Amino acid sequence: MEAVVLANGEYPANPLPLKILAEAPYVVCCDGGADEYIRRGNTPDVIIGDGDSLSDENRRKFGHILHRISDQETNDQTKAVNFLLAQGKRHIAIIGATGKREDHTLGNISLLIDYLRAGADVRTYTDYGIFIPCQGTRTFPSHPGQQVSIINFTARGLHGKGLVYPLSDFTNWWQGTLNECTDTEFTIEAEGEYLVFLNDTVLR
Amino acid sequence: MEAVVLANGEYPANPLPLKILAEAPYVVCCDGGADEYIRRGNTPDVIIGDGDSLSDENRRKFGHILHRISDQETNDQTKAVNFLLAQGKRHIAIIGATGKREDHTLGNISLLIDYLRAGADVRTYTDYGIFIPCQGTRTFPSHPGQQVSIINFTARGLHGKGLVYPLSDFTNWWQGTLNECTDTEFTIEAEGEYLVFLNDTVLR
Repeated sequence: MEAVVLANGEYPANPLPLKILAEAPYVVCCDGGADEYIRRGNTPDVIIGDGDSLSDENRRKFGHILHRISDQETNDQTKAVNFLLAQGKRHIAIIGATGKREDHTLGNISLLIDYLRAGADVRTYTDYGIFIPCQGTRTFPSHPGQQVSIINFTARGLHGKGLVYPLSDFTNWWQGTLNECTDTEFTIEAEGEYLVFLNDTVLR
Repeated sequence: MEAVVLANGEYPANPLPLKILAEAPYVVCCDGGADEYIRRGNTPDVIIGDGDSLSDENRRKFGHILHRISDQETNDQTKAVNFLLAQGKRHIAIIGATGKREDHTLGNISLLIDYLRAGADVRTYTDYGIFIPCQGTRTFPSHPGQQVSIINFTARGLHGKGLVYPLSDFTNWWQGTLNECTDTEFTIEAEGEYLVFLNDTVLR
């Protein structure tokens, strides 16, 4: 992984996203998301946003790494991902993207499909699990009993191996949620795009 | 409003959902969601679920109001809504449906469209705002500057009045998020189904 985007949702509490953040070679904070990161003794490589949710003190102190990108059509998470892609950094972890306003959560999660289309290898790590945007057939390591949700975007011919419940070409988000792994790996066969959510039962 | 469903997500902290819960004429708790409600001195009218996330003490003490509905195809929130619809209670508020596992949040929110199709007049109140499943053209009271998100499901011909940014037939969730009201009401013209999220800026 080449970079971490720390978004402006709830600051992570789970050990996995915290570890990813601590070990990140390059950290882009989304606007006010930088405040808590700095308060904990860290220095972001870049802060993306218009600075309106950043504290006055940090706006002064870190003005030299604040990149203002004015684009009403995208949010700060997308600006951060685009900033990294423009630098050739494709392998990206997103942290802190959920847990506050639910419309922000929905937006940030669904944008993963756009980042996949733009060529990013990106995952969102939350306090409850990992969102992975996928295209075509994919296999993932798992453990028996691990909960997994599949959220369909444009996929057809959805078929699962190593899952308790059968998959179909879901038309509503909830239909693929709350499935369960039966083995140490599972496979999703499909044409088109979908999101996988792996509930991290090990870390909680 | 005839009934409140208290789901098994994060217990509400915002004054609006807490007020709705306190004034509810009839409260259905989803399984373990009952524990905190009872701990605060309340008694649910019904507890729906298989009791596996309910505390041992409450399973014993409230066994007489625990309705076990075995259906692997639906979650407890849906069982609660169906239970109410079967009693003729159509006007339903859902509380505590978000804030923990994000796949549960996605599922619970998207299920509102199914409840609308089943004839329910239902809204989900979160700590950050209100989700309203809609069909066809709808007008809502608002205040200038209030943030609103529109998440498209099956709607065509989406067009807004009293909103800062124009609507179109969005194909990804994020596209209709983070709009803003310009006046004391706004209208969404459409054929088909969509979700409105009203960010409650007054109460925060």
